[in-house]
Amino acid sequence: MSIVLRPAVAGDGAALHAMVMALAISHGHENDVTATPGDFDAALTLPGGLISAIIAEVDGLPAGCAIYHRSFSTFRGKETIYLEDLCVLPEFRRRGVARQLLKAVARAAVARGVPAVSWLMMDWNDGARALYESAGAEVEAGNSFCRLTGDALGRLAE
Amino acid sequence: MSIVLRPAVAGDGAALHAMVMALAISHGHENDVTATPGDFDAALTLPGGLISAIIAEVDGLPAGCAIYHRSFSTFRGKETIYLEDLCVLPEFRRRGVARQLLKAVARAAVARGVPAVSWLMMDWNDGARALYESAGAEVEAGNSFCRLTGDALGRLAE
Repeated sequence: MSIVLRPAVAGDGAALHAMVMALAISHGHENDVTATPGDFDAALTLPGGLISAIIAEVDGLPAGCAIYHRSFSTFRGKETIYLEDLCVLPEFRRRGVARQLLKAVARAAVARGVPAVSWLMMDWNDGARALYESAGAEVEAGNSFCRLTGDALGRLAE
Repeated sequence: MSIVLRPAVAGDGAALHAMVMALAISHGHENDVTATPGDFDAALTLPGGLISAIIAEVDGLPAGCAIYHRSFSTFRGKETIYLEDLCVLPEFRRRGVARQLLKAVARAAVARGVPAVSWLMMDWNDGARALYESAGAEVEAGNSFCRLTGDALGRLAE
């Protein structure tokens, strides 16, 4: 088995969409996915660079991806990387693909000279926790994710 | 008492730094702040727009700020806004400043045409929870914040 990592480019939207959908299904959120393959192609190629992504191929097939973007730490006063999604298709799990993707994101951070990579994990995800802790990440429980959308967002903006 | 909201501009770095420091003190993290006022001025004015901020002035004095940046929802396939920090100086708390700042961020989202504003809250912060829920936000507990920095980041990148 060979794992090859490469940056996602225009035309990879369909592969990214399929992997995000697999992640959503694993978390019971498949009905919340309204993104299309074209949305990912657009975000990859937008002037200003809205997202970056790395695709892992196993024996030549897309097996997983890391989707990340620029963020900012107010405590450090510096640009950082936020890892939005780390996805591995079910048939390629437990082969070290996620760890290779996380390493690739760490390399991107070092290459850009940014001091931190951050992301969110669901507390129940023991497999993810084991990976992240073995990779040297700090994992801090006790956070709530808050979101304003739709009518509530519109009403608050009035 | 009058609350005036305005976008932060170059030169506001010192005010933003003071408010981020007040937030860090409230959370017991003052020793983790290495940012300088100049870091905020640089991030506000960097080509590509790393962060945006809104400053709330009460009777002409800087009283609070919202610091936010571009983000991306992989489920929606769209740009969103991530609210990095919502800070109110201790002497200006309990006067509705935080709610006005959150409204201003919601307006920025509507003006940009992005479908969501998201942020993190510490589970213990009941005052923040009351504000966010009354503003119509969904608050989802059970998240861990993960971070790779320093030597651990460098080792993983090897």
